[in-house]
Amino acid sequence: MEVYLDNSATTKPYETVIEKMNDVMRSYYGNPSSAHSFGIKAEKILNDSRDTVARTINCGKEEIIFTSGGSESNNFIIKGFAKEGGNIITTPIEHPSVLNTFKELESQGVEIKILSVFKDGRINLEELEKAINKNTLLVSIMHVNNEIGTVQDIKSIGRIIKEKGGRTKFHIDGVQSYGKFNIDVKELNIDAFSASAHKIHGPRGVGFVYVKKGLIPKPLISGGGQERSFRSGTENLPGVVGFSEAARIIHQSMNENYNKVFNLKEYFIERLRDFEDVKINSPLNEKFSPYILNVSFIGIKGEVLLRALDGNGIYVSTGSACSAKDTKDSHVLRAICLKDSEIKGAIRFSFSEDNTKEEIDYVLHSLYSSLKFLRRGK
Amino acid sequence: MEVYLDNSATTKPYETVIEKMNDVMRSYYGNPSSAHSFGIKAEKILNDSRDTVARTINCGKEEIIFTSGGSESNNFIIKGFAKEGGNIITTPIEHPSVLNTFKELESQGVEIKILSVFKDGRINLEELEKAINKNTLLVSIMHVNNEIGTVQDIKSIGRIIKEKGGRTKFHIDGVQSYGKFNIDVKELNIDAFSASAHKIHGPRGVGFVYVKKGLIPKPLISGGGQERSFRSGTENLPGVVGFSEAARIIHQSMNENYNKVFNLKEYFIERLRDFEDVKINSPLNEKFSPYILNVSFIGIKGEVLLRALDGNGIYVSTGSACSAKDTKDSHVLRAICLKDSEIKGAIRFSFSEDNTKEEIDYVLHSLYSSLKFLRRGK
Repeated sequence: MEVYLDNSATTKPYETVIEKMNDVMRSYYGNPSSAHSFGIKAEKILNDSRDTVARTINCGKEEIIFTSGGSESNNFIIKGFAKEGGNIITTPIEHPSVLNTFKELESQGVEIKILSVFKDGRINLEELEKAINKNTLLVSIMHVNNEIGTVQDIKSIGRIIKEKGGRTKFHIDGVQSYGKFNIDVKELNIDAFSASAHKIHGPRGVGFVYVKKGLIPKPLISGGGQERSFRSGTENLPGVVGFSEAARIIHQSMNENYNKVFNLKEYFIERLRDFEDVKINSPLNEKFSPYILNVSFIGIKGEVLLRALDGNGIYVSTGSACSAKDTKDSHVLRAICLKDSEIKGAIRFSFSEDNTKEEIDYVLHSLYSSLKFLRRGK
Repeated sequence: MEVYLDNSATTKPYETVIEKMNDVMRSYYGNPSSAHSFGIKAEKILNDSRDTVARTINCGKEEIIFTSGGSESNNFIIKGFAKEGGNIITTPIEHPSVLNTFKELESQGVEIKILSVFKDGRINLEELEKAINKNTLLVSIMHVNNEIGTVQDIKSIGRIIKEKGGRTKFHIDGVQSYGKFNIDVKELNIDAFSASAHKIHGPRGVGFVYVKKGLIPKPLISGGGQERSFRSGTENLPGVVGFSEAARIIHQSMNENYNKVFNLKEYFIERLRDFEDVKINSPLNEKFSPYILNVSFIGIKGEVLLRALDGNGIYVSTGSACSAKDTKDSHVLRAICLKDSEIKGAIRFSFSEDNTKEEIDYVLHSLYSSLKFLRRGK
């Protein structure tokens, strides 16, 4: 049996995503920027896809800018709004494409402020309110954390930023929430929102960023002026079409998927009660995404357990894929003040709607025997 | 009959490119950065693809950095090597992803020098030699121009840069030459080389940049540290595999393809002698790529002729796709000092090895009747 529980790293593309991409590659390969009718056909398909995606977050299609993925989207927005002399605010549990971009900007004279987080990974709203001043250009917050699944209270965060007034822009890294949680950019007072296709069964190498009408972040990639000059480069039409198809499908069954993975996570946690020396880092409540279950197996090295499970065809991760080969501890688990033994023994199980109870049973069985073997004689 | 002669804008993907991408999307969808064996399989495929691509330009596989395409590659290298106080050199006939990046850097305190070009689009090598000084950080030159097909003498340019010594890096925008001309980065003294997959029947949204071992351009996209930290973001494995497949195929038949399109261009030009008021802007000699034929139809507006041909199922362009909807004149045709009437009446026919003599006959026939109609009563 093979069980893929690394869906926060990447997902298997939907079959119709692949088919739609094939159709574009075979029949609509014209350049959407070309003036001939073959290009205009391609442009129409591009616009339809943009419209489909825009509807999922309640924005206008002219507010969607397609990019090469979540990392580019995050870099574009943060570098695009930051300016020397201003300050920008984020959290210590962000994705490296946010945190490393912040560090880069700090070395260029931008003041950065990293908020503290509670043990559940949520930020302190009062601290945020105090941190925003007239020079604050941007607050960049991850909606759902990729390692432990913390869901930030983005509604309250958006309200605070709006109430403080001023020129502060609110950016959401929505890579782990898009297609899984309701996003209404208007209701949530969001100025910019990053998403990635391959996290929702779409193609690799494509993402989008919503940029509120009227805002003008500096482009990261200059050139031919595609995407309203915010992102130059020949439009990746097969990728965009695949993304919009994945977005369409996943939004149709968003609540159903949510309940399905919620039940899987509930069952998994319930059954883990039979295990000794286990700590759940992402409990089953509204502060955590049901798509992510992070568990510390005390006294065990996460990577050793990962390999044992791997031997049984079970694919999980210790932290995020981006830091899988990093020997350093998880910055997220460190930020929520886990003990060393809890950090070293952490495993992330991340679900998709394709996972089943039978798979979870198989994983629990494999976990039980692996732990028994690894803890033998102790 | 449908005739696609806009291959410099984008090409139709090879069927095996699509098949290989499908195979990766269906069976090897793991994240190459994941630590489990499913991710490691993906990583192996990534490395094999990198190796295939590296061999085509005679570099080491660790010198290939995959990107989202030619525009990103150009932006990355130019912004990555430029520094305030230094100077960078280019030509007036570059792609907008180079020229607009230069302009952006100029506003940030980088001194830019635009060389002049002769009527054939080639730069003056003596002028280049004089322009390079101890503060020159980068010379960025397009190997083959996208509008008129000028082939720069990159061997001599590389030699001049090397002989001047110093820290000047030599970057080639090879988007229109890769897969069509022999590139040996060692022999040509190239420090960085940009290429794009979709110009050689590969997928949209993927490119590479060769960066000579030891050089450290600043990344454009920071994050999880993929691509040796030069380009973060989950690796686009289906795209990279499609790119390497296209690269493999096109390099196998590079000389054959070259001769084929050379004969097509020769035939086309020969037959154009029967036409009145026609000026060939990209003659059949070693200074021009056989893949591009730029022709001015004097007294005719290019976009009007484009539409007439379009009505007959023939897809061509006036300038590049990137500026197809721009109302400004072509900066390339302006730089080679064409007259206004020659600029306004210019059409680019760009070939691939799939085009046939029968297609050219059909195009010539359509051109003849369209011109007769458009010039009626004159």
